[in-house]
Amino acid sequence: MTQKIPVVEKILSANDRLALENRARFDAAGVFAINIMASPGAGKTSLIEQTVRALQGKLRVGMINGDIATSFDADRAAAAGAVAVQINTGGDCHLDAVMLQSAIAQMDLTSLDLVIIENVGNLICPADFKLGAHKNVLVASIPEGDDKPYKYPGMYRGVEAVVINKIDLLPYVSFRMDFFQDGIEALNPGVVQFALSCRTGEGLQAWMDWLVSQVAGAKRF
Amino acid sequence: MTQKIPVVEKILSANDRLALENRARFDAAGVFAINIMASPGAGKTSLIEQTVRALQGKLRVGMINGDIATSFDADRAAAAGAVAVQINTGGDCHLDAVMLQSAIAQMDLTSLDLVIIENVGNLICPADFKLGAHKNVLVASIPEGDDKPYKYPGMYRGVEAVVINKIDLLPYVSFRMDFFQDGIEALNPGVVQFALSCRTGEGLQAWMDWLVSQVAGAKRF
Repeated sequence: MTQKIPVVEKILSANDRLALENRARFDAAGVFAINIMASPGAGKTSLIEQTVRALQGKLRVGMINGDIATSFDADRAAAAGAVAVQINTGGDCHLDAVMLQSAIAQMDLTSLDLVIIENVGNLICPADFKLGAHKNVLVASIPEGDDKPYKYPGMYRGVEAVVINKIDLLPYVSFRMDFFQDGIEALNPGVVQFALSCRTGEGLQAWMDWLVSQVAGAKRF
Repeated sequence: MTQKIPVVEKILSANDRLALENRARFDAAGVFAINIMASPGAGKTSLIEQTVRALQGKLRVGMINGDIATSFDADRAAAAGAVAVQINTGGDCHLDAVMLQSAIAQMDLTSLDLVIIENVGNLICPADFKLGAHKNVLVASIPEGDDKPYKYPGMYRGVEAVVINKIDLLPYVSFRMDFFQDGIEALNPGVVQFALSCRTGEGLQAWMDWLVSQVAGAKRF
């Protein structure tokens, strides 16, 4: 008679389990966390700078920045008023839940309301690694071109909000907003979208209002 | 007595060995191959379109395009007059030598002078995978920002030419050309640079001249 060995299905990967631990830590401290992803140069850091400045006196903001090299972005967030922690991935093309765990360990979460995580600039790999954030946000930008949702579907599928940055450049580049937004809608129906310019400030208020309402909603539970 | 087993050092990775095979195939057919890498939306395909059009009647050009999804870019290169092969990586964030080998198998290399490989839009991972091309070219673009060489050193180190695209947008964004070029020079001293705009055509001629001279130089050996 063949002996049957029970197989325990590996339902969650190691990274996913650690992401849940990170999430539990945020929740225990009453902190709302967002993970911001984008191509290099789409404007993640500019959006974070503007957000930190606008929220000063309203929310206590921490920032975790992932980069292959330098602390340029964390420095910019710190200058804007955030408690900033830099993760240098040393070549890795994305943040993962382990890196985030180390970063959280360096922060006093109980003194914060919102943690903004800036992922490594990459429109592919970060989508595959959960961190434990409550919301995942993609920053697209006008000069990247209107075909990006079609060409990078994984990233556009896995987010709860899309920020379309650099709309001040619309007059100077070829960009069909309808085509772009059709692509987003096909991959991620009904996802929240914000068209704005971190340079001119146009459209930023709607993003701030959404973010503040998300943090407030989380605090209620 | 302990028996000694000779250990053969793994000097070249499997990918590097295949890259050498690809190179040998290009060389045997008298084809010059370049590997173009960039962030999503920096303008790889626009540069290739312009290049294919300008070289019509002068060089026979083939194009191999790597994308996660769609054949948008290969279609654009084909419309401009190139023999185009699309590789869909199905999620992979870079081309590798195996993928390139499959693509080459679909081309009649002896009917070509130049093969342009458009890598997946990614400023990190493609730098780690040799393909067998004679030259690696990085396309940067003005709206990506002037800090990119510092933040993505691996990519800037491993190329033989840097194309700085979208210079027509210089009046509309904040970009310190000196700071950007200092970063390139620190990582890759003396690397050939071209500042140009695929949109207006400004600066394209110097790029074309360099490329044609590279192909001619290779043909001589």
